[in-house]
Amino acid sequence: MIDFTFQNPTRIHFGKTALSHLGEEVRRYGNRILLVYGGGSIKRIGLYDEVMALLKQENAQVWELGGIQPNPRLSPVRRGIELCRQNQVQLVLAVGGGSVIDTAKAIANGACYDGDVWDLFTGKGSNTEVLPLGTIVTIPAAGSEMSNSSVITREEDQCKCGRNTPLNFPAFSILNPEYTCSLPPYQTACGIVDIMAHMMERYFTQVENVELTDRMIEGALRTMLNNAPIVFEKPDDYDARAEIMWTGCLAHNTLLQTGRVGDWASHKMEHELSALYDIAHGAGLAIVFPAWMKYVLPRGGAKKLAQFARRVFEVPEAFGSEEAIAAEGIARLEAFYHSIGLTTTLHENSIGDQDFDRMAQRAVALAGGNLGFFLRLKAEDVKAIYQLAL
Amino acid sequence: MIDFTFQNPTRIHFGKTALSHLGEEVRRYGNRILLVYGGGSIKRIGLYDEVMALLKQENAQVWELGGIQPNPRLSPVRRGIELCRQNQVQLVLAVGGGSVIDTAKAIANGACYDGDVWDLFTGKGSNTEVLPLGTIVTIPAAGSEMSNSSVITREEDQCKCGRNTPLNFPAFSILNPEYTCSLPPYQTACGIVDIMAHMMERYFTQVENVELTDRMIEGALRTMLNNAPIVFEKPDDYDARAEIMWTGCLAHNTLLQTGRVGDWASHKMEHELSALYDIAHGAGLAIVFPAWMKYVLPRGGAKKLAQFARRVFEVPEAFGSEEAIAAEGIARLEAFYHSIGLTTTLHENSIGDQDFDRMAQRAVALAGGNLGFFLRLKAEDVKAIYQLAL
Repeated sequence: MIDFTFQNPTRIHFGKTALSHLGEEVRRYGNRILLVYGGGSIKRIGLYDEVMALLKQENAQVWELGGIQPNPRLSPVRRGIELCRQNQVQLVLAVGGGSVIDTAKAIANGACYDGDVWDLFTGKGSNTEVLPLGTIVTIPAAGSEMSNSSVITREEDQCKCGRNTPLNFPAFSILNPEYTCSLPPYQTACGIVDIMAHMMERYFTQVENVELTDRMIEGALRTMLNNAPIVFEKPDDYDARAEIMWTGCLAHNTLLQTGRVGDWASHKMEHELSALYDIAHGAGLAIVFPAWMKYVLPRGGAKKLAQFARRVFEVPEAFGSEEAIAAEGIARLEAFYHSIGLTTTLHENSIGDQDFDRMAQRAVALAGGNLGFFLRLKAEDVKAIYQLAL
Repeated sequence: MIDFTFQNPTRIHFGKTALSHLGEEVRRYGNRILLVYGGGSIKRIGLYDEVMALLKQENAQVWELGGIQPNPRLSPVRRGIELCRQNQVQLVLAVGGGSVIDTAKAIANGACYDGDVWDLFTGKGSNTEVLPLGTIVTIPAAGSEMSNSSVITREEDQCKCGRNTPLNFPAFSILNPEYTCSLPPYQTACGIVDIMAHMMERYFTQVENVELTDRMIEGALRTMLNNAPIVFEKPDDYDARAEIMWTGCLAHNTLLQTGRVGDWASHKMEHELSALYDIAHGAGLAIVFPAWMKYVLPRGGAKKLAQFARRVFEVPEAFGSEEAIAAEGIARLEAFYHSIGLTTTLHENSIGDQDFDRMAQRAVALAGGNLGFFLRLKAEDVKAIYQLAL
């Protein structure tokens, strides 16, 4: 275990009655509100009307920034910052999934920074203040509702850039699993993959003696494996939706990272993929993660992959060597992805090898020359992993 | 899963370099400091001198309240409150284990309450402000360093009373596992039992569909079972001490309680025991908890106890019925307690049945007539459990 500082101040309201806390939160932070949301889904499920009615009760003035797309872009962030500045907004309220929340985080930071908000993502600039951010979550996936991270893509060069800072922790987040019952199966599946990936990125570390967090991750991954089939069978199963939603939150809130260094190569390789092809992040991870596992297995990864196989997928000793047990774990992970309707190869998504060099080089360059921590990857390694994913 | 609000704002500095954060914390909260500590151990391990040297660098004015005993009493709390008021203390700094931290919590609350501090424990009074509290932990056990609870005994009637409030969360806590390497085996063992009990109290619930927290608790309990033998074999094993210390913190920080209702009957039955006989809290729990399990097993507890037996102690199906598997789990828990040098019966501690009626009645009265949640206990049930513990 390595030394760490851990703090996560986000207040979580979870459950069927979670939204009833919105009023008290608005009274705490102020009622000049920028409402950030995505497409029409929050209107379709009636959540938009519910939120607006509650805000009206607080005599709130609300400015709206709707239409946020998946793989969120920089332009709406700039528009949101302008709205905050022009109207002395006191609270940014994100209603939606990770893209909406990440956009809102960038706005909440950028509104308190005099320069160009993109500087905060490149490290060229920094801020110490941030507008309070509240979130109402409709898609369990990114875990952004209790995380310190925000990922935004700059349109002109398709550069997808993340920023981790304690300033990104929302002040409060409202999670009602009922909002997720009407998610289409594909989006549900992509969310499940993303949640599990957040934990697997942390699980695969070279830091030794991390038994507590290893075991908590294993337990949380098993919870995902057990509840995923239920929501495809019965989409409005509240209990299974609740397990997935709370796991999604804890998967990325930095608790499961304490005392260890995560890998994150797969996420960054996927960022290149989705920046270029606009594939859903979770769908991309279902392709990249198993390929990454196959690449690291014979390069020092067998022991940890075998632990993963045994404890998460109950691969029995009868499979033989560490390598064989590890390989069976990867196969079972792929089978799980297939079972929830996802593909695990690039060619099934009509993606060829034409951009591998460019993607590999940029992924490694953005990581400062070495990508990942479990195995340090150079551009040629990254390219080989993309090839394994073909 | 039931609806919940979760927030834990305590900032944790963990590891060999954790104490290096003390200066920045003092600069954040103020350098008029009440230092609360216990017997001589923090002087013996050199920690007292280290802390005083760091506080001197911050030009701190320090008032001292030493000599806090296990099962902390009300009188020193009153003395601490007086010191805070007389000297405009800005930060209460607890250096020690749960008793020291619980005392410091009561002081930090009482200093901001005009009436008698005991009113806060009985519910007769309430406060909304609290002095900032920092802790430097030397005993992993109570988990008070990241918890919302504080337990104090009033001397005149041996009434041991707990209070849970978000005001009790420390502002920061410093955890260096090295400080715990010199703990005597008995104290190490009592701490391990207490940590595990904090998780088992939450584990045994009637709330259904709590898979994530169930599995996280199971993983954390297994971590304790695996690392306990190491520290008795090799007391200065940093890695095992670190696993125990971080587990002790998470065991009681309310995360593992999200979406569920804990039982807490065993803790409250133990409080009666240690209030009357001054037995160490952990030693008392090692006696009470297995007796409680044996009592609830045939009264609707078999299913959850069997899950506990299978997942935490790997009891195989070959044991037969749910009841037999559950019973074997209890036997293995008792065997574990014995393996770390503790007893599991009252008579081994020279305690007879003379006070059972009084203890049972008070435990149930303090709980408002029904003790526990997994099984609701009346005074006659509590007495029967004490009898099972003879």
